[in-house]
Amino acid sequence: MRIKKTILTKAFSGLMLSSAILTLGMGNAIAQTKSYISDHDKVQLEQLTATTAESTLSYDIVESLTTEVGARMIGTEADKRAIKWAVDKMNALGFDKVWTEEVTHYQWIRGDVEAQVLAPFPHRVEAIALGESVGTGEQGLTAEVVHFKTLDDLKAAPSDSLKGKIAFISYRMERHITGKGYGKAVGARVTGAQVAAEKGAVAFIMRSVGTDDNRLGHTGVTRYKDGVKRIPAVALSNPDADLLVNQFRRQKPVEFSLKVTAMRNESVEVKGANVIGEITGSELPNEIVALGAHLDSWDVGTGAVDDGLGVAMTMAATAHIAKLSQRPKRTIRVILFAGEEVGLLGAKQYVIDHKDELNQHVIAVEWDFGLGKIYSMQANVAENAKPAIAELANYVAPLGVEFNPANKARGQSDMGAVTDLGVPAMNFAPDGSRYFDVHHTDNDTLDKVSPQDLQQNTSVYTIFAYFAAQADVNFRK
Amino acid sequence: MRIKKTILTKAFSGLMLSSAILTLGMGNAIAQTKSYISDHDKVQLEQLTATTAESTLSYDIVESLTTEVGARMIGTEADKRAIKWAVDKMNALGFDKVWTEEVTHYQWIRGDVEAQVLAPFPHRVEAIALGESVGTGEQGLTAEVVHFKTLDDLKAAPSDSLKGKIAFISYRMERHITGKGYGKAVGARVTGAQVAAEKGAVAFIMRSVGTDDNRLGHTGVTRYKDGVKRIPAVALSNPDADLLVNQFRRQKPVEFSLKVTAMRNESVEVKGANVIGEITGSELPNEIVALGAHLDSWDVGTGAVDDGLGVAMTMAATAHIAKLSQRPKRTIRVILFAGEEVGLLGAKQYVIDHKDELNQHVIAVEWDFGLGKIYSMQANVAENAKPAIAELANYVAPLGVEFNPANKARGQSDMGAVTDLGVPAMNFAPDGSRYFDVHHTDNDTLDKVSPQDLQQNTSVYTIFAYFAAQADVNFRK
Repeated sequence: MRIKKTILTKAFSGLMLSSAILTLGMGNAIAQTKSYISDHDKVQLEQLTATTAESTLSYDIVESLTTEVGARMIGTEADKRAIKWAVDKMNALGFDKVWTEEVTHYQWIRGDVEAQVLAPFPHRVEAIALGESVGTGEQGLTAEVVHFKTLDDLKAAPSDSLKGKIAFISYRMERHITGKGYGKAVGARVTGAQVAAEKGAVAFIMRSVGTDDNRLGHTGVTRYKDGVKRIPAVALSNPDADLLVNQFRRQKPVEFSLKVTAMRNESVEVKGANVIGEITGSELPNEIVALGAHLDSWDVGTGAVDDGLGVAMTMAATAHIAKLSQRPKRTIRVILFAGEEVGLLGAKQYVIDHKDELNQHVIAVEWDFGLGKIYSMQANVAENAKPAIAELANYVAPLGVEFNPANKARGQSDMGAVTDLGVPAMNFAPDGSRYFDVHHTDNDTLDKVSPQDLQQNTSVYTIFAYFAAQADVNFRK
Repeated sequence: MRIKKTILTKAFSGLMLSSAILTLGMGNAIAQTKSYISDHDKVQLEQLTATTAESTLSYDIVESLTTEVGARMIGTEADKRAIKWAVDKMNALGFDKVWTEEVTHYQWIRGDVEAQVLAPFPHRVEAIALGESVGTGEQGLTAEVVHFKTLDDLKAAPSDSLKGKIAFISYRMERHITGKGYGKAVGARVTGAQVAAEKGAVAFIMRSVGTDDNRLGHTGVTRYKDGVKRIPAVALSNPDADLLVNQFRRQKPVEFSLKVTAMRNESVEVKGANVIGEITGSELPNEIVALGAHLDSWDVGTGAVDDGLGVAMTMAATAHIAKLSQRPKRTIRVILFAGEEVGLLGAKQYVIDHKDELNQHVIAVEWDFGLGKIYSMQANVAENAKPAIAELANYVAPLGVEFNPANKARGQSDMGAVTDLGVPAMNFAPDGSRYFDVHHTDNDTLDKVSPQDLQQNTSVYTIFAYFAAQADVNFRK
């Protein structure tokens, strides 16, 4: 996004010259009585806004990550390459310190899925194993399918009613700018297999949690329950789920064959790493502004959107600030978490490794959702820091970001683990309408990234990071 | 598409009452001096327009074909099921005569493709064998890739310059309402392998001929040349072709491994069939209005768009007319061609089987392109029949169809073989902007069919078929 220089200058001048109370055009607006940064900082912010509006740096980073590494599931050779790539890239971008912190997991190998409707009408079906699913063994299995419209319907099925059967949930995720349809759909993916197994099912199949109409299944982690048989779990592409529903409409038994060669090797340890880089604060080096994203991806696509975008914009924001003539007061730390996809492993390790330092994390933000421009921002900070957030809102308003003053934000994905422990949170809400078209699929590739949108995203993260590192305020409650 | 009854009545009344010259609002318009159908026919056309605007018949047919049969490449078991399905469906729809005519081909089995970039940066690549490609054998092959932007660039490469190499063409098809980008792109698919082989290449890879950004390759037939080594030929999905181009930008050698298990068994004969059904003319039963589509599809997707749409609307148009109280004067014949995808086999067989009858084919139309509303029509008829076509144009104008009076139409795909032998042609041009997003891919499934667009398409085909069967004119030159 390019912003006309004149408009930009005007917006910043207004803020610099005015000492009056700024009333934001919202019902619940917060009165701003003073500025929390210096006039020099405002000039710097203006410069950063102009620089990031012209820079392709964040796009170049995600191009590099997707071209030179690609898919990078924890424990794979590609994940090791990704870690090296991230360390090298941060060093090349002028970070002051770069290091890794080990994160471990057990091995899971995707293998292949062969799925077919055998009756009433034979069809090859496009399906993908849910993350960490067990396999069927080489012999596969054949069984009748029982159709449930929702996870609740499956839960309501009588015990043992699925003995020897395959359970199928056909619920379709709804598209929404906030991505809220995901919450309603993902339960089936996480717990569907265990619920089906409790009722005797031999396998679990579901419509992908996704909003697209491509013959590509959406993976994502599934969870087993202690004491309940682990059954293979796969997601059908949306068109294949439609086809299965249409077969059920014929009122004839639906026979299905499934072969899943996935392997869940819990006795084999694999290693990943959080990759951390920072530019060290000039006055308050122990105070940390934390920018998060996750470095790992699923083993499909090239992890461009999930979470190449976050990797790119957190690194680029910090690099842009590193190019200023002096370091900001506080330290800006980029944390590229390991193993987010398989259960926030890097985040869980980070809060252990940094437990004595968490009270020095002054504010934390992550990017792990969305595929479009940021349209809203919300924080979760101390009462007396709310006017500072309102001031920040003025600097990103020219980029189309509205201020939500509710002050109830939680960190996204990994950073949720950090902000749940009392670290103040910032959350920027991007357009998520198209995010679940590609999420966890082979379609998560560079062509889905809009350079213009990523430029706006990066501008916002840069402005936030600089402001948070300079603001004369304590965000902590 | 629903048409308001009042508007419809008005349009038809105007035509019925007016005996004046109708000047169509186009530069090259043809003056219409008389009506070629009776007032009763006009009432029937009005009724058919209203009926088809409300009917879901054509959608129901394509739903049935894609759900109960699905992909149906010539020579496969599914193709046999498709033939039976078509015969049964035409009989159920009240056709007077339904029969099949054998079409033979050799066997081709797709097998699988495993493709990887090995260097400079390893990636799994999504690719599909081009139709009728030979395989690599189980051992696969590994070679350096040489990048050409276009087929012409490949043609310009020196002899033997590709010895032991893989040739790659990265040309990207352009999107256009007429689909004209296909013509510029498809040459590489048809002849790329033979041109590459002539220069010593061991395999041919190309960017898919398609306008989408999905990780799904577009198949389609490739041709070998006598005396030139047959090399494996595959199409990469658009995102994978992008990735390969980005790897080449690194200015390092690109190493690629390819395993294609396709089998081209030219000594094994397989059988398909043209399926033909007609409603017999009440006055001129030997005069045939021919409506064509192809029954076969590639062995990916479910053949919903290519050419389930054509199958559905030609069958539905005829069925709607069959429900009128009496048969039209001329015979309306639906020809569902076999083996179009592998080289217009059914069409070639049809003009042999019906050579003595072709001069009784008064006009022919096919649907084998497009995924949207018809916006234009053009015929190719005798000079003295042009005013009749102009009259027809008035009946479809309320559906949004503009009249192109150029009178140079050629039948689409299969019907091209028929109209090339002197049978008058009608061509309805639908919106083709999105057609090559799904063409020849696993994404060619029912969800891509717009019931509203298909309703309009069917209305147009029905009006055409009825008019052509009744018009007091000789379309033949």
